[in-house]
Amino acid sequence: MIHLNRKISDVGFSKDNIDHLGNKYLIGNGYMGIRGTAEEYTAELHPAINLSGVYDRAPGKWRESVNAPNGLYCLLHADGERLALPEKEPRFHEQSLDLAAGLHGRRTLWRVGETGVTVESERFASMADPHAILQRYVVSVDREAELTLDSGIDSEVWDINGGHFSSVSLTEREGILSAECRTIEQGIVVTVLVGEKAPVVGETVKEGGKLLKRYRFRAEPLVSYVFEKTVTVCTSRDEDAVGLPTMLDYEEAKRRHTACWDRIWYRSEVQIEGDDEAELALNYSIYHLNCIAPRSGGVRSIPARGLSGQVYKGAIFWDTEMFMFDYFLFTDPDVAKRLLRYRITTLPGAMEKAAEYGWRGAFYAWESQEGGLDACTDYNITDVFTGRPVRTYFRDKQVHVSAAMVYALVRYLEVTGDRSVLREGGNRMLLECARFYHSLLVRYVGRDFYEIHDVVGPDEYHERVNNNAYTNRMARFTLEQAACLLRDDPICTEEERLGFLEAAKRLKVPQPDPETGLIEQFDGYFRLEDASVETLRSRLIDPREYWGGADGVASHTQVNKQADVAAMLGMFPEDYPTDVMEKNWLYYEPRTEHGSSLSACMFALLACYIGRPDYAYPLFMKSAQQDYLPGSKLWLGLIFIGGTHPAAAGGAWMVASRGFAGLSIRNGCPAASKPQLPEGWARLRFRILCRGKSYLVTATAEKTLIEEEQT
Amino acid sequence: MIHLNRKISDVGFSKDNIDHLGNKYLIGNGYMGIRGTAEEYTAELHPAINLSGVYDRAPGKWRESVNAPNGLYCLLHADGERLALPEKEPRFHEQSLDLAAGLHGRRTLWRVGETGVTVESERFASMADPHAILQRYVVSVDREAELTLDSGIDSEVWDINGGHFSSVSLTEREGILSAECRTIEQGIVVTVLVGEKAPVVGETVKEGGKLLKRYRFRAEPLVSYVFEKTVTVCTSRDEDAVGLPTMLDYEEAKRRHTACWDRIWYRSEVQIEGDDEAELALNYSIYHLNCIAPRSGGVRSIPARGLSGQVYKGAIFWDTEMFMFDYFLFTDPDVAKRLLRYRITTLPGAMEKAAEYGWRGAFYAWESQEGGLDACTDYNITDVFTGRPVRTYFRDKQVHVSAAMVYALVRYLEVTGDRSVLREGGNRMLLECARFYHSLLVRYVGRDFYEIHDVVGPDEYHERVNNNAYTNRMARFTLEQAACLLRDDPICTEEERLGFLEAAKRLKVPQPDPETGLIEQFDGYFRLEDASVETLRSRLIDPREYWGGADGVASHTQVNKQADVAAMLGMFPEDYPTDVMEKNWLYYEPRTEHGSSLSACMFALLACYIGRPDYAYPLFMKSAQQDYLPGSKLWLGLIFIGGTHPAAAGGAWMVASRGFAGLSIRNGCPAASKPQLPEGWARLRFRILCRGKSYLVTATAEKTLIEEEQT
Repeated sequence: MIHLNRKISDVGFSKDNIDHLGNKYLIGNGYMGIRGTAEEYTAELHPAINLSGVYDRAPGKWRESVNAPNGLYCLLHADGERLALPEKEPRFHEQSLDLAAGLHGRRTLWRVGETGVTVESERFASMADPHAILQRYVVSVDREAELTLDSGIDSEVWDINGGHFSSVSLTEREGILSAECRTIEQGIVVTVLVGEKAPVVGETVKEGGKLLKRYRFRAEPLVSYVFEKTVTVCTSRDEDAVGLPTMLDYEEAKRRHTACWDRIWYRSEVQIEGDDEAELALNYSIYHLNCIAPRSGGVRSIPARGLSGQVYKGAIFWDTEMFMFDYFLFTDPDVAKRLLRYRITTLPGAMEKAAEYGWRGAFYAWESQEGGLDACTDYNITDVFTGRPVRTYFRDKQVHVSAAMVYALVRYLEVTGDRSVLREGGNRMLLECARFYHSLLVRYVGRDFYEIHDVVGPDEYHERVNNNAYTNRMARFTLEQAACLLRDDPICTEEERLGFLEAAKRLKVPQPDPETGLIEQFDGYFRLEDASVETLRSRLIDPREYWGGADGVASHTQVNKQADVAAMLGMFPEDYPTDVMEKNWLYYEPRTEHGSSLSACMFALLACYIGRPDYAYPLFMKSAQQDYLPGSKLWLGLIFIGGTHPAAAGGAWMVASRGFAGLSIRNGCPAASKPQLPEGWARLRFRILCRGKSYLVTATAEKTLIEEEQT
Repeated sequence: MIHLNRKISDVGFSKDNIDHLGNKYLIGNGYMGIRGTAEEYTAELHPAINLSGVYDRAPGKWRESVNAPNGLYCLLHADGERLALPEKEPRFHEQSLDLAAGLHGRRTLWRVGETGVTVESERFASMADPHAILQRYVVSVDREAELTLDSGIDSEVWDINGGHFSSVSLTEREGILSAECRTIEQGIVVTVLVGEKAPVVGETVKEGGKLLKRYRFRAEPLVSYVFEKTVTVCTSRDEDAVGLPTMLDYEEAKRRHTACWDRIWYRSEVQIEGDDEAELALNYSIYHLNCIAPRSGGVRSIPARGLSGQVYKGAIFWDTEMFMFDYFLFTDPDVAKRLLRYRITTLPGAMEKAAEYGWRGAFYAWESQEGGLDACTDYNITDVFTGRPVRTYFRDKQVHVSAAMVYALVRYLEVTGDRSVLREGGNRMLLECARFYHSLLVRYVGRDFYEIHDVVGPDEYHERVNNNAYTNRMARFTLEQAACLLRDDPICTEEERLGFLEAAKRLKVPQPDPETGLIEQFDGYFRLEDASVETLRSRLIDPREYWGGADGVASHTQVNKQADVAAMLGMFPEDYPTDVMEKNWLYYEPRTEHGSSLSACMFALLACYIGRPDYAYPLFMKSAQQDYLPGSKLWLGLIFIGGTHPAAAGGAWMVASRGFAGLSIRNGCPAASKPQLPEGWARLRFRILCRGKSYLVTATAEKTLIEEEQT
């Protein structure tokens, strides 16, 4: 394979794009994510060094992930004039990202009187040194000018529900700037150190929440003034944070960083011959997944908005297991195992949640933070008309979440063959999830089957429904897998195991109507008003109003937020013949708003299963370009929800592998059905790992070839 | 007993009182109700001759009862000036009601220039001739004046969701004015005939929707010009409407009418020595019940707003069986049997409704119209902020309604001993109600008891709750009664009967907490925010907003609209010792808005059971004076709900009889526990019928005496 060498960039500057580009140009190394913002941005423009797995609750607010003080901060003055976006309009501005190496670039030219001042910067979150961010900031002028560069730490971070620091201590010791902040709730110390190599001597200045080196100098034309920073970020929770170097050699660090990315890309690059746009979009998605994957340190997973900020509280959703997991499973099973370990470790939290609602077993969090604590509140939306909180049922009724853990676990076992995860707590997780569903089952006195009532399925626009097809199918899967995998495991008695089996057999899973082939999403769904997405849009009074809830414009219609029956069929393609899948695709897709990034990829996958890559392609591209193109929803009701969409990225990879290439696992070996390549795709090629072996998968119009390679 | 001779009146005129007085001064005879409005009022001021049991649906609107053309219409001009309230301010105005004889009176003095013009009128809905309304309209002047009196029929009726007539034919034949109107939906012909005896000759005039006799004459001072009208109202549905006299002698008709009222009052008057205000209030309530009781003609019951208009669609609610039934049972069991017959006859509608939701048996309508059709829609409230319909669950989740029929049936059997009602379909009704509840029961796989999920109890502010105490208790009662009363009845197999018994035994009914004695209203109620009614009021943004629904100010708090646990305890006072009832009264009463007229009387009754007539008294008075005093809710969201409150009236009678007098039925005989007379009440006295015998009940501070009388 030819190694990827791609750079993306946006030329020009517009204030309206700041949030979008902050997401699009994210860099990260799994320990932290750094938003693609300019060095001079302060909190109101949403810069962030978002820490994975570090949470805090400010008094009266909700818990969310913590942003570290911004050690990348730089602000330039030339001849007394402040050169800062967005106030000072640039003559030229470019922001870029080298996907191959995770390098963020920026070049801005301002004019100050007759003088042209250029700033060029590069930064990366080191893949080799998870606590280190390196930044090179280069200034040059075309005429002599008096320059002042403030470079250091801005401790006034962007918070959605902050502030999170009860104390901030800004000090300098032996030339190293340091911000030591203590979180409110748990007193976690977040430390940011900045060591800088500068061509001139600076003085240390404290201004408000900023601790800076101030470099004043007369710049000569055609000289590049290079300032190199090592930003070290660590917390008192990190076991590996002792004795970190505070100053790294930029080039040397970059070499080691790039070598890591080379190894990652070797396993994960996807080639699409004949469609450069799709190839870029998919690899761009993969880039994001690689930036946020937990590869070192403590127990971590991947939040729904990646490491792009505090949106959705920095919490981990079922997105990780159902949409992102597959990608890691096939390209870096060690990451997949880490993701499972997060859920195994947080089992006590899930059991506590189940008990809180009177259920047995494990009810995994809708918004999982450390320890499995569900950060979701009962009032997760604000009504745009009254400003009042609206009772939502994400937390208490999305019971399908637990089954996602089991789905991922079973995939892991299938693809890796590594059963150690069962012994290391996977069996307990599986058992408690099965117990959870078992305790949910109800039976009417006059009926001989079980039902699951009062749930919210993946499609969140319909609350408190009975017998949601996806939920019940996933529950059945969980019960079956527990009965199968826990055979002879002493943690489960034979009686209980047989109880699971009986329950799985008797559990109602909505079946295709014999006439129409349609599967009803939940009891009564087909009786709802059959309005179109456009009709609903025309009914909106306020563009920001929530479509779901008790009385949203979609709530009492057949319009869905996202794939639900389609998700079920996508995850269990062998349940029904193709014509059933097709009929349901044709019915549900036009009735879906795709208001969630979890939607398009599921419909795309299902479209492949029904042999319609032409249906799949635009939905695949929508997923793969979710963060690449502007236009993602920024608001849900009155709540800011902007950020990256790693589930869409992972979903795009699933579509490419399971869908277009037809990849599946049969009896522990990779296998492929007929490929379903979109028009114009000459060849789709990627590597996978399966049971310790590496394979090169090559799909062409006729056939998908799976060749074992030497690892 | 001394026969009641009471007249109430309001002196003075205010436009703001028109709706209230329209209710307060209602007259009626069970066939129709006539609002207490002035003769000259047209539709916008809400006059109405509201027909019992006649319904229509205007296209795109909801079904509601039909108002007949207003045959009482009169408009006077004096010296060219229009004398009509509210435009022409009167010098004196009095509206009155003779409760003893159901006579509506009105006296208005206007000044026109120097001339005083007085109108005095009297009218009654004949108790002897159910199709007849008689009106006497008397004009006099204190100086000579030119008068024009228009008197006839106004066919432009007040409708909430009309118009209901596809055709209106206004004709005169042999001096009789006639309006023949055809309803839209079913083509029911509503006919109003007006025969008039006048002191002068009139000419017939048609003006818009009015057909009038126009009397022009020069009036002499100190002469009374008397116009007497017989208004005959009938519909093509009436079997007794053939050959009705079109002109009755006023005095003769009044004598016969008064004689009927005398008989009614003989059985129903309540004496309260020592509290004239309470005595008036209670007898006033009884007056209303007597005005609207079905005593003749087809299958009818009593709507929730009596016959005061189209509010709540003219539909019959569970109010009738649980709140009004007792009064009729003890004073006129024939009416009680008619009420039961309405439910027996509408059983097919209730069974259809059950089937619609997938249940077995009979699910009685929340808003029952003819045939048991449930007029309630799924969207029964309009959001004040968006103007959008709100999904409510009155229709589909208030499953307790069916049990009300059984409760009334069992009361009927107990008090009358008349088992014919069982043979005449009561047994089938009972069986189907039991089947309904049986089919609702669910059992969790891991539990050995039954539950009822996803209901709305009497307290409508909390929707879709599980194991509502009142609902489950009523369901158990239904199952038990079916098992008991259907023993040896061939309509029910022994197997099914034993199934009911087993279900009744295993059905969870929330029990008093051993520590606190409190019964939880439904699963999770005690975990809701414990806010006060006042706090909720302070949270209102719009005074008209609905407190309930998915996200009303009360929905997620412990504040109730109305008695729920208290209603259960009030209806089953022998379930628990007094201290449990007391603890629950003390807990729930302050948490109740009493936003329904069904509330105060239940708490008053329970207060008597706990020996606290001082708690009961203000709540009793609130019920008894609900329509007597102004201030009743006129709006629910954006929906007009003004009208009379016969359930409060019936509830007040229950408080007086069961509560203050301590009356109960033991082994088929009236019995009494210690009376609980409010302070100042020297004696409470009323008659009851029980198993064909008449009793005089006399409660004094020490004891309640029950004496059999000759009937």
